[in-house]
Amino acid sequence: MSPSAVEFARNNHPRFLNELKDFLRIPSISTLPEHKDDCRAAAGTLEAELTRIGMENGRLIETEGHPLVYADWLHAEGKPTVLVYGHYDVQPVDPIDEWLSPPFEPTERNGNLYARGAVDDKGQVWAQIKALESLLASGGKLPLNVRVLFEGEEEVGGEGIAEYVASKPDNLKADFALVSDTELFAPGLPTLCVGLRGMIYTEIEVRTAKSDLHSGMYGGAAPNPFVTLAQIIARLKDEEGHILIPGFYDDVIPPSPEELAAWRSLPFDEEEYRIKEVGSRKLVGEPGYSVLERTWARPTLEVHGMPGGFIGAGAKTVIPAKALAKVSMRLVPNMVPAKAFQLYKKFVEEIAPDGVDIDVRLIHSGDPCLIPVDNPYIQAATRALHEVWGRDTVFIRSGGSIPIVGDFDRHLGQPSVMMGFGLPDDQIHAPNEKFHLKNFELGIQSLVRFFEEAGA
Amino acid sequence: MSPSAVEFARNNHPRFLNELKDFLRIPSISTLPEHKDDCRAAAGTLEAELTRIGMENGRLIETEGHPLVYADWLHAEGKPTVLVYGHYDVQPVDPIDEWLSPPFEPTERNGNLYARGAVDDKGQVWAQIKALESLLASGGKLPLNVRVLFEGEEEVGGEGIAEYVASKPDNLKADFALVSDTELFAPGLPTLCVGLRGMIYTEIEVRTAKSDLHSGMYGGAAPNPFVTLAQIIARLKDEEGHILIPGFYDDVIPPSPEELAAWRSLPFDEEEYRIKEVGSRKLVGEPGYSVLERTWARPTLEVHGMPGGFIGAGAKTVIPAKALAKVSMRLVPNMVPAKAFQLYKKFVEEIAPDGVDIDVRLIHSGDPCLIPVDNPYIQAATRALHEVWGRDTVFIRSGGSIPIVGDFDRHLGQPSVMMGFGLPDDQIHAPNEKFHLKNFELGIQSLVRFFEEAGA
Repeated sequence: MSPSAVEFARNNHPRFLNELKDFLRIPSISTLPEHKDDCRAAAGTLEAELTRIGMENGRLIETEGHPLVYADWLHAEGKPTVLVYGHYDVQPVDPIDEWLSPPFEPTERNGNLYARGAVDDKGQVWAQIKALESLLASGGKLPLNVRVLFEGEEEVGGEGIAEYVASKPDNLKADFALVSDTELFAPGLPTLCVGLRGMIYTEIEVRTAKSDLHSGMYGGAAPNPFVTLAQIIARLKDEEGHILIPGFYDDVIPPSPEELAAWRSLPFDEEEYRIKEVGSRKLVGEPGYSVLERTWARPTLEVHGMPGGFIGAGAKTVIPAKALAKVSMRLVPNMVPAKAFQLYKKFVEEIAPDGVDIDVRLIHSGDPCLIPVDNPYIQAATRALHEVWGRDTVFIRSGGSIPIVGDFDRHLGQPSVMMGFGLPDDQIHAPNEKFHLKNFELGIQSLVRFFEEAGA
Repeated sequence: MSPSAVEFARNNHPRFLNELKDFLRIPSISTLPEHKDDCRAAAGTLEAELTRIGMENGRLIETEGHPLVYADWLHAEGKPTVLVYGHYDVQPVDPIDEWLSPPFEPTERNGNLYARGAVDDKGQVWAQIKALESLLASGGKLPLNVRVLFEGEEEVGGEGIAEYVASKPDNLKADFALVSDTELFAPGLPTLCVGLRGMIYTEIEVRTAKSDLHSGMYGGAAPNPFVTLAQIIARLKDEEGHILIPGFYDDVIPPSPEELAAWRSLPFDEEEYRIKEVGSRKLVGEPGYSVLERTWARPTLEVHGMPGGFIGAGAKTVIPAKALAKVSMRLVPNMVPAKAFQLYKKFVEEIAPDGVDIDVRLIHSGDPCLIPVDNPYIQAATRALHEVWGRDTVFIRSGGSIPIVGDFDRHLGQPSVMMGFGLPDDQIHAPNEKFHLKNFELGIQSLVRFFEEAGA
């Protein structure tokens, strides 16, 4: 144990928190073109900070989109090398009027720090850097070799980093990756995520006429693209949540009986989850599967928005000439995104009515993944977490997608340690995103100890 | 015949057209709060012009929304009185990028005048005023008593005028109404509209959760309001266009065999209509009914837009907490809007899944109507039209809704003469709305002659 590095982190925590707030003030929304410069500013902040704390070879790596940030420290001879990953880009903030404090003015309230990106993922990136700083500042060196690679396109598909990882594997040689973009299963419960869903994010565009038409004059003769989309969507998923695309479930591998048994022992109350997290009158999904199975180990299909037509206040009696549906599917281990997309596209084209033009487009995709828990880095992580949190680690999956974990595996041969410090009610991708302040603090200490254990 | 009034109209036509362009430059979009002052400006222009040409008692009548414009001339003793109606408000202009010239910069092209409101209904209102001016300027008096009542809320339900008509019938005493908000069946073919569909315009709001949720974390457990709306919409109308609401067709009265026979003799080519007007690969609608029956004499259901969720470019993996669908239904003679809405609301609530909150709201409604063709004012109109256009009038219906026609009938006991000069391809409510310039000119002359015949 190195009390000095953990102690350094403790003593400097107020400064760390203030720095994080400055970082969160940069509105690095990757999907909106008007925030391109903000994304670059966030990348620049990371590069400067990595260099300031003593990391070497800090630089921005240009991509077709937002830049990657790289730095390394490779002087721990004979020790393993870790590739530290996180992302500096954030989700859009709409609906803006539901935020209790402005999304880019980080605000402390009830032991939490509220801001867009607080926990997904800028706060966790900052925790990684502060762990490295604590080690370098207290001991003058790191206990293992470290490469850092941050991206700015995680929320929009991560094409830039995927291409870089695939094309420059020699620049990223390491024994394992550390990915901090996940959450604890419950407050105070150290957690490692060992499985992720993949995804395909798509658009269906329906074009029906040469221009918008008056529903009085043409209603009864002109096709309506929203009605067509509604009919298609209603045939993609039944009212119990089964996806109706032929062959869609063929490659699904169910969790092992041991994994299912472990999930059943987790502290999880469906009723509390329904009320406190979802806030719905009822949960949905396939009968016969628990909530954890449905969200971790079953594919799903969601509609995110349906652009087109008239969406203002009041009434406009238009039959729009076209409309879109933004539809995504989450995939589970052993499903292949390209295959799932082809099945989906073929089915949508089959069920579409005659006489309308349909485009089914893939916006982005990511592989599902499953990490073996017996590798030494996962084991090092459980020792570090036990020390800081005083409890045994639980192994869970996540319903979300971190496509880069699949890329690290496929192109670099690196297993990922997904060690994150969010909480289930952190409201990521929604108004009032937060990072629990205590988790930011213990997260830094956990990462310090993990680097020490992994290099021991 | 009074050659002098028609001649005055001919001689002054260039000025009339320039005045109309000035009037069209006012962006009087009634549904958008930011154009409130523009609506008032349009009303003020009409009041000033009516006074300038010699109409009396010109004034704005305040309503809860945009003002009415009133004026009269009641010195034709022993002659009938006409209530002249039109509307100065216009539809929104989105999608703005599909306009070939700006919607509020009236532009002449190919013998047409392009602008939002060119034909619906500011151009037709201007034609009414110019007909009155031609009569007053050439003869110093009018051949019958005239009351003018223009409204500024036709595109948003017309509540203000409906309330005024219902509450102040004594201020609007007349023998019949002249409504100029319709079109010729084909270029050069004088047309009177004697039937209108009614409508109910509604919103379905589905609320599922306390806030937006991440589709990775919650997909498979949290309800999705767009999926719910799609399932509801798919059950409102089948793939052939039949409305599936129980009891919805119960009160529908079909057209008489004579009326159907007359419709079959109209110059109408379904294939040309499909290609030139609708611009779709196929027409839709109930099998067994012609296009004219489907659009004039059958109820329909349309979806105009589905606000909510993420509609920007790119991807956002959100399960929205709520979503809306803007849904309207057109009603045909003998259907009652309040009853149709109740049947619809009850059915939507019945088919909605458990566990989501549904609001079904009526935004506005209008009665269908059917005018007897044997009344003397319709007969006077056919004589006037024959003289100007050199052809017999055809009697048609319109698929659109002019709720005020029902109000004039119910509250004032006035049959309406629906004499309008639009064309089927005028793109009303859509980009590149136009008024055929020749129709503006002959429309003014037709109205001059109609006032003379009605007062003869």
